[in-house]
Amino acid sequence: MAQQGGRQGVVHGTVAAGYEAVRGEFEAAVASEPADHSAQLAAYVHGERVVDLWTGPDTDGDTLFAVYSSTKGAAFLATALLLQDGVLDPDRAVADYWPEFGAAGKAAVTLRQLLSHQAGVIGLADGRFSTAELADDAVLAARLAGQPPFWQPGAAFGYHALVIGALVGEVVRRATGQRLAEVYEERIRAPYEIDLFLGLPEEHEHRFRTSLPMQPTPRQQAALDALPRGPHSLASIAFNRPSDLVEWPNHRKVRALGQASGGGVGSARGLARMYAAAGSDVDGLPPLLKPETLAEVARAHSVGRDLVTGIHQAFALGFQAICHTQYPYLGAGTFGHDGAAGSQAFADPRDGFSYAYTRRRHAFPGGPAPENERLVRAVHRAVTGAV
Amino acid sequence: MAQQGGRQGVVHGTVAAGYEAVRGEFEAAVASEPADHSAQLAAYVHGERVVDLWTGPDTDGDTLFAVYSSTKGAAFLATALLLQDGVLDPDRAVADYWPEFGAAGKAAVTLRQLLSHQAGVIGLADGRFSTAELADDAVLAARLAGQPPFWQPGAAFGYHALVIGALVGEVVRRATGQRLAEVYEERIRAPYEIDLFLGLPEEHEHRFRTSLPMQPTPRQQAALDALPRGPHSLASIAFNRPSDLVEWPNHRKVRALGQASGGGVGSARGLARMYAAAGSDVDGLPPLLKPETLAEVARAHSVGRDLVTGIHQAFALGFQAICHTQYPYLGAGTFGHDGAAGSQAFADPRDGFSYAYTRRRHAFPGGPAPENERLVRAVHRAVTGAV
Amino acid sequence: MAQQGGRQGVVHGTVAAGYEAVRGEFEAAVASEPADHSAQLAAYVHGERVVDLWTGPDTDGDTLFAVYSSTKGAAFLATALLLQDGVLDPDRAVADYWPEFGAAGKAAVTLRQLLSHQAGVIGLADGRFSTAELADDAVLAARLAGQPPFWQPGAAFGYHALVIGALVGEVVRRATGQRLAEVYEERIRAPYEIDLFLGLPEEHEHRFRTSLPMQPTPRQQAALDALPRGPHSLASIAFNRPSDLVEWPNHRKVRALGQASGGGVGSARGLARMYAAAGSDVDGLPPLLKPETLAEVARAHSVGRDLVTGIHQAFALGFQAICHTQYPYLGAGTFGHDGAAGSQAFADPRDGFSYAYTRRRHAFPGGPAPENERLVRAVHRAVTGAV
Repeated sequence: MAQQGGRQGVVHGTVAAGYEAVRGEFEAAVASEPADHSAQLAAYVHGERVVDLWTGPDTDGDTLFAVYSSTKGAAFLATALLLQDGVLDPDRAVADYWPEFGAAGKAAVTLRQLLSHQAGVIGLADGRFSTAELADDAVLAARLAGQPPFWQPGAAFGYHALVIGALVGEVVRRATGQRLAEVYEERIRAPYEIDLFLGLPEEHEHRFRTSLPMQPTPRQQAALDALPRGPHSLASIAFNRPSDLVEWPNHRKVRALGQASGGGVGSARGLARMYAAAGSDVDGLPPLLKPETLAEVARAHSVGRDLVTGIHQAFALGFQAICHTQYPYLGAGTFGHDGAAGSQAFADPRDGFSYAYTRRRHAFPGGPAPENERLVRAVHRAVTGAV
Repeated sequence: MAQQGGRQGVVHGTVAAGYEAVRGEFEAAVASEPADHSAQLAAYVHGERVVDLWTGPDTDGDTLFAVYSSTKGAAFLATALLLQDGVLDPDRAVADYWPEFGAAGKAAVTLRQLLSHQAGVIGLADGRFSTAELADDAVLAARLAGQPPFWQPGAAFGYHALVIGALVGEVVRRATGQRLAEVYEERIRAPYEIDLFLGLPEEHEHRFRTSLPMQPTPRQQAALDALPRGPHSLASIAFNRPSDLVEWPNHRKVRALGQASGGGVGSARGLARMYAAAGSDVDGLPPLLKPETLAEVARAHSVGRDLVTGIHQAFALGFQAICHTQYPYLGAGTFGHDGAAGSQAFADPRDGFSYAYTRRRHAFPGGPAPENERLVRAVHRAVTGAV
Repeated sequence: MAQQGGRQGVVHGTVAAGYEAVRGEFEAAVASEPADHSAQLAAYVHGERVVDLWTGPDTDGDTLFAVYSSTKGAAFLATALLLQDGVLDPDRAVADYWPEFGAAGKAAVTLRQLLSHQAGVIGLADGRFSTAELADDAVLAARLAGQPPFWQPGAAFGYHALVIGALVGEVVRRATGQRLAEVYEERIRAPYEIDLFLGLPEEHEHRFRTSLPMQPTPRQQAALDALPRGPHSLASIAFNRPSDLVEWPNHRKVRALGQASGGGVGSARGLARMYAAAGSDVDGLPPLLKPETLAEVARAHSVGRDLVTGIHQAFALGFQAICHTQYPYLGAGTFGHDGAAGSQAFADPRDGFSYAYTRRRHAFPGGPAPENERLVRAVHRAVTGAV
């Protein structure tokens, strides 16, 4: 397939009047990347798309990437609807919905604690999940239910990187009979026409571009190599090491299942539209969440040094509350989720905008790519006039 | 009005025998400030004043400055008396005293959580307070009661910079029929003759000197400018930005109302005497607090990274527990409060002393002025002989 | 007594095949120490000793050192047995077992909170313990029972350096009629033939070598001197300053009593064997703890900045959970305890090994000696093949 539009590093797409500086910042970010860099940037303000940019070979605004943990945004937005409906009560014990989960010292763990990464059920105590198992939330939930927690539930928190969607999803399944991906599809993706899939239909496969591995510089590689690794460390358990997470979404089966922690496939357009719909009218459709739901699911429940990643982190009800960490200038109540290839996506309802950035090749050092710092700031400036 | 006593940078006042080094340290601190620097330093040991120093044009030991958040020391000492009397129960829900506060997910917030900055009600969700509104705790309380919290109450804490006094004050008003400022006036300021006012009477106005703005160096200004700001960030909400807090206490109405979070006016003499009276006989008057009350209100309830300020902080029941943060060498159970112009004031009951420092011009970067580090250490050394 | 085996810096003892690199690392660590450096290193893998090394004058594998807080490993392993038996319930109030402890705001403190250093009863509110008092857990418990806590119990944690063993020990005594040291002796030390004593019998005295003071370089001494100290600071209270902790275990009476927080005497062989026995068969004897007990007592209950030491710390039920702090590459669920002379000892059940290092002379800056970093990494590499 040929590049749509030509030379390397060229930026395509449009911005609304007043957002020219965002385009400039995106161009500058692209210029410092290798020639094959593929990425997308989108933003909505009060329900209108104001930024719609992309770059890279075989890439346009409709291209779909593996968004890894940015998938969680979709999963927890669906969960928020069930909280809003009263179908789920965050202060009930998980074991009330899912009795098997109550084993081994977890009987009192609430759904609120589970959603905010306090439960301590981060991965397999013995062995590792296979690529196929890792794609199937039902398998993950069944294998994890009976395990003791890796820390005292409620006393600390740590990123349940690959399994939080399975655990919350099992609660959803017990309460509703539906998979989390089905709730998302029926109530969010289909009616709002959002280009982010938990379970990619065959007919959209032609728009998917495989995930590509990080290309660290020698200095970056040395930094990665210097990190001491252990086969049974908390991080190895949480990230199911050793397993090739770069190749994982490149399997059709993984994409088909739409695992709720990281199996989603979408575009920046899709992510930005989803977060716009969370709290704003979009194309005449009403906001998904009422203000009080928005306030509750977005507020920080777990703040501090994450036991798994070792970094300063803030989790709301499933979402990352990034206004308490990387982006203190964003509006209070900003919520979203980054992803392992470098994506970042969030809603800032108080400032009235949503942001999404995706990229194809994994960025050093993992998690939100460094270029998000300049891009988020540029969008925020354009929206608010802040300096 | 002419300077009392002459040349710039001259230090006036007295120290008791054994406190000469404190005077030297104050002189050294003054020497590094601009010519118009006005400041006061006072300390009590076991109920006796041992340090009484001042410097600057139009300034003497009886001069009154805006003490900003050092006001909270007075407000929470009055609150401590009500806790001691059993009029307030720290473990009751705030909503038991003040039903309107129970709205929007705050029904279970206890007075203990509110006092230790865990409630998450830091400012207006929509819009900003006017200068006049900000001066009136009754207005603040009424506007904030129904709001959802900005984080999950009890799960984290952040500095309720401008409103904690209003929120606690409303509890006091519901429980006693009195304003917090009235409780302070009747039970503390008047009987103990303390030169710190929540509501400055007209007859003391001649002693007040207006607050002056920070004069950052170009390098300091650059550091301030580099901080990314957002109109709806947690910090902007908590500090009611944009609003001119330097000019705020320069309005007579603000001084007259004595807003409990930051509207107090006083001298270092007054602050040091108040903290001396908290736990010691002063001029034959009994200590305000019993040892068990002193232990309870001074002990840390919230420790860690403050969600609003982003700095490592420790709060007791309203007071800052600075022995856990800036001053780990001070006695366990040290409690006090700094202020935005640079003031610092506290009691260290275990070492038997109190300390107060005030200044007229706001110090870079805000909060306790850097010179407190050397001054606190000098007083502590003189009192304890520690090196 | 003459050195066993000759020249300074020589390393004696044996390693199993595959552990040669550990010997090399130990030799390298020894080479950077003064000529009189005495130390021991031992490790078990799946119940078999694979490292057994020592160095220094008057030192061999059977030499006994004061292990300071590594003593706590023995005390809390004995406590874990009582938890496993159901004799102690971690979620009961301490005051249920020990009514006097419930005074002064501590009625609701649970055994779980006490074990994880959350109770806030770190030392004497007034005065200091004498050397003899500090050796007697019964005296410590009686003196501390009625005190108010130094922070709000459960709201924070701090290292109860010298008294945690006395407080937990009093609970054990009330519940069982036995001293913690007796439980340890009967159920762990004697049957498993472990060379670590809480209460050193006269007949083993000939193997004991006195504790020697730190020998800081001038630069290190300057760093120590620069730390501001206060007579009533939290750290001074917790470490019973001023008192000579280096000389403390050199008194026969201290060694005889086996104070449970720091009065233990043992070898690296003993410590490594004890931690091996916690979760593995050792010489045909069954593991001391069932997997579910091991999971519970080893999991982190208190994580963050320690109020007493000011460093990032993680406590499980009495043990340090060092996989959350210094050694993130170790297996999740690693538990152990370091000591003031520089010792470090732990079990990593998930990786299947235990580690112990002891030294005679206190290491700068106190706590686990810096050489543990290379030694732990070397043992972990040899066991797991991790790089």
